[in-house]
Amino acid sequence: MLAKWTSELSGCWAALTAAALARPEEPLDQSCERLLAPVSVGEKSRTAAEIHARFSAADDDEKRDFLAMLSNRYDADPRRLRAAIDAFRLDPDPRSLAELHAASEPRRQQILRRLNEIPNGTAMLLAMRSTLLRLGRDEPSLAALDADFVHLFASWFNGGFLELHHLDWSSSGEILGRLIHYEAVHPIESWDALRARLAPADRRCYAFFHPAMRSDPLIFVEVALTTSIPVSIADILRPDRPVIDPATANTAVFYSISNCQDGLRGIPFGGPLIKQVMELLRSELPMLRNAVTLSPMPGFAKWLREEARAHSADASLVERLGAPGWHAHAAAQTEIRPLLMRAAARYLTMVQGRAADPVARFHLGNGARIEQLDWLGDTSPKGLRQSFGMMVNYLYDPAHVEANCRAFAEDNRIAASSRLRRLARSDAASRSARRLLALMEKK
Amino acid sequence: MLAKWTSELSGCWAALTAAALARPEEPLDQSCERLLAPVSVGEKSRTAAEIHARFSAADDDEKRDFLAMLSNRYDADPRRLRAAIDAFRLDPDPRSLAELHAASEPRRQQILRRLNEIPNGTAMLLAMRSTLLRLGRDEPSLAALDADFVHLFASWFNGGFLELHHLDWSSSGEILGRLIHYEAVHPIESWDALRARLAPADRRCYAFFHPAMRSDPLIFVEVALTTSIPVSIADILRPDRPVIDPATANTAVFYSISNCQDGLRGIPFGGPLIKQVMELLRSELPMLRNAVTLSPMPGFAKWLREEARAHSADASLVERLGAPGWHAHAAAQTEIRPLLMRAAARYLTMVQGRAADPVARFHLGNGARIEQLDWLGDTSPKGLRQSFGMMVNYLYDPAHVEANCRAFAEDNRIAASSRLRRLARSDAASRSARRLLALMEKK
Amino acid sequence: MLAKWTSELSGCWAALTAAALARPEEPLDQSCERLLAPVSVGEKSRTAAEIHARFSAADDDEKRDFLAMLSNRYDADPRRLRAAIDAFRLDPDPRSLAELHAASEPRRQQILRRLNEIPNGTAMLLAMRSTLLRLGRDEPSLAALDADFVHLFASWFNGGFLELHHLDWSSSGEILGRLIHYEAVHPIESWDALRARLAPADRRCYAFFHPAMRSDPLIFVEVALTTSIPVSIADILRPDRPVIDPATANTAVFYSISNCQDGLRGIPFGGPLIKQVMELLRSELPMLRNAVTLSPMPGFAKWLREEARAHSADASLVERLGAPGWHAHAAAQTEIRPLLMRAAARYLTMVQGRAADPVARFHLGNGARIEQLDWLGDTSPKGLRQSFGMMVNYLYDPAHVEANCRAFAEDNRIAASSRLRRLARSDAASRSARRLLALMEKK
Amino acid sequence: MLAKWTSELSGCWAALTAAALARPEEPLDQSCERLLAPVSVGEKSRTAAEIHARFSAADDDEKRDFLAMLSNRYDADPRRLRAAIDAFRLDPDPRSLAELHAASEPRRQQILRRLNEIPNGTAMLLAMRSTLLRLGRDEPSLAALDADFVHLFASWFNGGFLELHHLDWSSSGEILGRLIHYEAVHPIESWDALRARLAPADRRCYAFFHPAMRSDPLIFVEVALTTSIPVSIADILRPDRPVIDPATANTAVFYSISNCQDGLRGIPFGGPLIKQVMELLRSELPMLRNAVTLSPMPGFAKWLREEARAHSADASLVERLGAPGWHAHAAAQTEIRPLLMRAAARYLTMVQGRAADPVARFHLGNGARIEQLDWLGDTSPKGLRQSFGMMVNYLYDPAHVEANCRAFAEDNRIAASSRLRRLARSDAASRSARRLLALMEKK
Repeated sequence: MLAKWTSELSGCWAALTAAALARPEEPLDQSCERLLAPVSVGEKSRTAAEIHARFSAADDDEKRDFLAMLSNRYDADPRRLRAAIDAFRLDPDPRSLAELHAASEPRRQQILRRLNEIPNGTAMLLAMRSTLLRLGRDEPSLAALDADFVHLFASWFNGGFLELHHLDWSSSGEILGRLIHYEAVHPIESWDALRARLAPADRRCYAFFHPAMRSDPLIFVEVALTTSIPVSIADILRPDRPVIDPATANTAVFYSISNCQDGLRGIPFGGPLIKQVMELLRSELPMLRNAVTLSPMPGFAKWLREEARAHSADASLVERLGAPGWHAHAAAQTEIRPLLMRAAARYLTMVQGRAADPVARFHLGNGARIEQLDWLGDTSPKGLRQSFGMMVNYLYDPAHVEANCRAFAEDNRIAASSRLRRLARSDAASRSARRLLALMEKK
Repeated sequence: MLAKWTSELSGCWAALTAAALARPEEPLDQSCERLLAPVSVGEKSRTAAEIHARFSAADDDEKRDFLAMLSNRYDADPRRLRAAIDAFRLDPDPRSLAELHAASEPRRQQILRRLNEIPNGTAMLLAMRSTLLRLGRDEPSLAALDADFVHLFASWFNGGFLELHHLDWSSSGEILGRLIHYEAVHPIESWDALRARLAPADRRCYAFFHPAMRSDPLIFVEVALTTSIPVSIADILRPDRPVIDPATANTAVFYSISNCQDGLRGIPFGGPLIKQVMELLRSELPMLRNAVTLSPMPGFAKWLREEARAHSADASLVERLGAPGWHAHAAAQTEIRPLLMRAAARYLTMVQGRAADPVARFHLGNGARIEQLDWLGDTSPKGLRQSFGMMVNYLYDPAHVEANCRAFAEDNRIAASSRLRRLARSDAASRSARRLLALMEKK
Repeated sequence: MLAKWTSELSGCWAALTAAALARPEEPLDQSCERLLAPVSVGEKSRTAAEIHARFSAADDDEKRDFLAMLSNRYDADPRRLRAAIDAFRLDPDPRSLAELHAASEPRRQQILRRLNEIPNGTAMLLAMRSTLLRLGRDEPSLAALDADFVHLFASWFNGGFLELHHLDWSSSGEILGRLIHYEAVHPIESWDALRARLAPADRRCYAFFHPAMRSDPLIFVEVALTTSIPVSIADILRPDRPVIDPATANTAVFYSISNCQDGLRGIPFGGPLIKQVMELLRSELPMLRNAVTLSPMPGFAKWLREEARAHSADASLVERLGAPGWHAHAAAQTEIRPLLMRAAARYLTMVQGRAADPVARFHLGNGARIEQLDWLGDTSPKGLRQSFGMMVNYLYDPAHVEANCRAFAEDNRIAASSRLRRLARSDAASRSARRLLALMEKK
Repeated sequence: MLAKWTSELSGCWAALTAAALARPEEPLDQSCERLLAPVSVGEKSRTAAEIHARFSAADDDEKRDFLAMLSNRYDADPRRLRAAIDAFRLDPDPRSLAELHAASEPRRQQILRRLNEIPNGTAMLLAMRSTLLRLGRDEPSLAALDADFVHLFASWFNGGFLELHHLDWSSSGEILGRLIHYEAVHPIESWDALRARLAPADRRCYAFFHPAMRSDPLIFVEVALTTSIPVSIADILRPDRPVIDPATANTAVFYSISNCQDGLRGIPFGGPLIKQVMELLRSELPMLRNAVTLSPMPGFAKWLREEARAHSADASLVERLGAPGWHAHAAAQTEIRPLLMRAAARYLTMVQGRAADPVARFHLGNGARIEQLDWLGDTSPKGLRQSFGMMVNYLYDPAHVEANCRAFAEDNRIAASSRLRRLARSDAASRSARRLLALMEKK
């Protein structure tokens, strides 16, 4: 039924587009006015379709003009706003407050709502904001419009409206192809590689979808079911690994999580996704004991280089550390490993009293604790470049998630295993950081 | 996949409810505070579930207290608001305006968004507002909260998120049972009667659904495909009527349209529904020429009685007009019919320069025109009581919808067929109104 | 996708029907010949549709003629058959045997296969056989055709092709309405009564469907989840009973099982259905300990009357036993109950060394054992009429199903609980049968 | 509902497999006996699962033994058969005939039916026959078993049970991957190449599925919607071609059709697929005027070589014709083209009074006519090797399909366009064949 309707709608949509193209072009601000005028439902749809079609077809200059026009011309009505302020100051009751709130709402919010009211409207608004972000870096005039996008998207992409789907090899080609495209942590090289992440019984992939964008995920997480906490991404992705019976797994490993929609930047989906997937896996697989991540430390190498610079160490030495094949030498294991481990522990926990790493902040904010460091957990070029191959497991322990979350939010307190804590103990760690720097200088 | 998830979610939901019941009860305002605090995603869900569970179980006094507490305690933060006003007055730029808008947003909007973030949250918020409407008629303190409900619902139930579904005999028992319950115009007496409206090839039913409430429609319309404009609802609903091949139909008759969700009162769905159904039917059945309604005139009898009173006619006479069986007398046809027809024409078009009837205002606002009056179109007790059995066809002519809509919105101009216009011509009509009154007096 | 195709097919089917009607009518045997001739795929479809359309529209005489024609004219080709017999007798090798088997296949089997090859063909063949059964009771000429129907249906409705569906209140109106229609054990009085059997959490309904008949079940079973073995159908069906959490149930009660398709008479679906439903429930609800039935004894009253007659007891006395309200008297409890219980035990187990009751034979054949008798388990008029209100629980114990099944199949040995066995012990039981007869005579 | 059940079934299936492995291995003929014995439904399922599991795990020798055992030991029961023959010869009435047919049915058919009665049984039987075909080429002892497979599959894969699905980019990864695997005419190089055949608006792919094998197609056809009859496969597959609006297409081109299931060899699906797809496209796109194929001539080169040999021409010359790049020379166009065209016309129509080409026989048998030859229509290595690059369009003209089909079936008469007919005219064509041979000799 739905499918039928969708195809009919898309016919409809084609008709609208045709209509839009047929209309002699009017200035876009006039079209926007029509969206706010008392015209028929059909006329509103045609106008919204027209605006979207013309925006899509426009070049960057025209797009910037359109966005700036929205931003400048469709602020709150100044006269109404002033009256509302006066009324509220005179008599600050719920009614005058309500009017003040209403009067201060930029009129372009209503335009955006109307632009959403046609088939595919939501996706097109996301594309519009994505354009704004691209163009807007050095266009402060667009900030107000961006705030409206964020306000509406946060409300529309409310957790109550998201749908969690299990993606596997029976998912549609459309969605599967998008997973390849969107994967942001460990690139998926081919459809076969994708299949190896989705089809085996001990692999799972879950995504949030918004009902208005049924074949385009918002965020997805890849999960491996294992019998121990993994210490290397290669073990997870190896094509020839043995597949285990999920009923025997005791550990769920969240080894990759990717946001998909640039247009939704700033709207958080990761925390709810992890929570729902954990609940779902626990109810399905009662043998599961641990939920951990296998995570990159994307800022580690950069931070260490900056540290080196800051302590007047020769930064080029850190570069040498990253020379091809360095990690395969025996020295890496005996000399560098303990030093890098301590530096990493410090990086994760003690930089200016807070977590320096964005991934760490994300998981700590969700109530996880830092469980262990994985030496050479990711020896791909990207892994070596970002973090000298180091990875980290965050552990989600239901019994402590709540307390961890609060302690982090309120006191910036970081939950970590005692092992990690020992590693990071201030003097040992800073001594090792110093020794590392010295070592690098010697090289 | 979806079905699976839904059932898993409902398990999840049961767990949340259990959790809620297990927690020693804390004051509800404290729970609300927790919704705004930096707690974990899981804690937020548990809290939201707890509030919903306790609200559902509460008695009316407790419910009123909760709603009033939301309304009173969670207004905008006064200090922040005052600062924002001052900043804006000092320097009214986009940034200070944005802050003013943000600062004037009642904090309870965020609470409502959080209450929506659990499975079934949307339906429970609708129930909450439905309770507010029931309790709130004489509780002005709840008005501010109601405005927040309307603001959020209008955004969440945006046309871009609604799904149009064709309902027929393959629809679920859940949905079908709700159609019987929600039908507001011509009651559906039994499942067999429902089947007669959905299953035959020349009958259609379309509904809007919101994705967060998949088996509970927001609004639905019943359509008959016919070969002429019908003049009586009995002809449409007669169980023994011949079923025609839809491909031979030239007329789509919208004979019943019902809003379903009391909690969404004030959010309009009717116009978009009619528009989309018309487009869909036209693309499916290219032989269709007319789209008309067969509509009640719910306020006609009341208006005529008031007119009688206003013109000092003896109102009891109008009552007599409504005596059992009056319409079956020959006199009804010869004497009363022309008079009532003119009165009805006048009622629909010329009362104080605007349409007095709510159904008329709805269709005129959508761009329809008044096409013809149907004498004794509905001789059910309700039909005779509301409108002395009169019905009316509104015609949606795509070529004029836009102009009609604007003329009505901007100049209050009413579109009507020339026949109707003649009938309603001021002097004839008022003469007949006078004659009708006289006649009633004679009786 | 499927839905789309189905609707397209039905359009297609309409076209075929139209084509069929357009063709000047030819004798039906000529149409049958064309089904066997080397015509195009399209021509075959048109011809099959034509035959079905003409058969549906025919009166009973014409239908009988058509069926008899199939039966008589489309036997095996006698010349080919004779040659095959000769060849096989001369040289009985696999090849000559294969040819013999092929040559002995009646040509009408191929006609039936071709009649199945159009949309809805399967359902129409079922209707054709249903007609045959109705007409054929005293038409031995149709027996050969019926054997072909049975042969093909048994192959086509092979367990590997059936789909088990959980039916609940989200099932389609089409299917739900059919459940009301097909229920053969405890009639479903209304849609509300149906809802009470499907919607509560502690009620289940499962059905087999064939993929070619997606909205028409083959057989369905209704299950109650309870915390003890029920002794009365009224307890199961009472609308005001408390609903229990399925997770707390220890007993699955199969309280009604109905075959739906008259045209499939003789093809057994009950055993596989019970087996699959038990497996499914056990995997879903690990707390389940017992799987029992609550079954009627449809032949008990009849058998007892015949016994009475056979032992020269006055059969009218048994009739008196069935007088309105007899079971509500105290005497029923004290005097009649022990006697009827023993008679029932005997009826179920020891009549001429085998189970006399068809329902008993069904469950015993599936490996169940007779667990207990339920005095006044069904005091509906039908229950009192069939079995003086007696019901019986059969127990499916996975540990013994296999042995019970074999013992019953090979040695006609009946599995029963020790209590039942004691009740039925020959002398006590026959004494009570005699006392019952005496009592009846006294009355 | 279905999805749920499928996953439950697969759990069930896992359990069965486990059961199978747990049972101490018994000889396979004993397992087969148990399938025919009066055991419980559950025992039958377990046994069937066990046989399948052991067959899958067996090596080729064991597989051959199992198949031969089925073939030899489970023929018809000789005593019953002899009695049936005698009875029939004595009194050949419908009853004795029915018994003869039943008695001559090999008992292994019942075994095969039982092996089908578990989840995935059908797919496993297909795999079993596929193995038989692979092993059986020189094992005449397996022929009888193969005949049983064909008999049962022909009945089970009856057109009435097949489902036509439109496959596109929203189809599952499972199915899409199989299309790449199964494509037999123009190999699909990558997922991107697959997307280019499925996703554009002017491309379609339709497949037949059997309901017991929902994600494994039986046969599929790829269709291009165009505005003229295409003369080259490269034009169809070019990634940079312009996509046209399907509503403007007047020609549907069936450019690739592939059978998928080796285990169903000999069961024809192509004719019904083409017919249904044509009907579907015509009803969806009323502008369509032509339905043509763009087909290979797989046997042409081989035939021409044999002709050369037969006419004592030096076959190596034909080989030279196939030298790399020969077709790019000017001579190819001027000299060779007319000769090869005539030879091809002759090959398609006049070899010993019948079509020599298997693809030609297929389409002619479905009622198509040979419309035109496409010189260098396929210059891929395979195309040049098979047919010197020649392709051919067959045209399906609804007005003539029926007559063409009959004429071909009954009189071996080949439908061809007048142009093709002229090309193939005996003397011209044989002259050109001779000249071609001469030319080849000169080279």
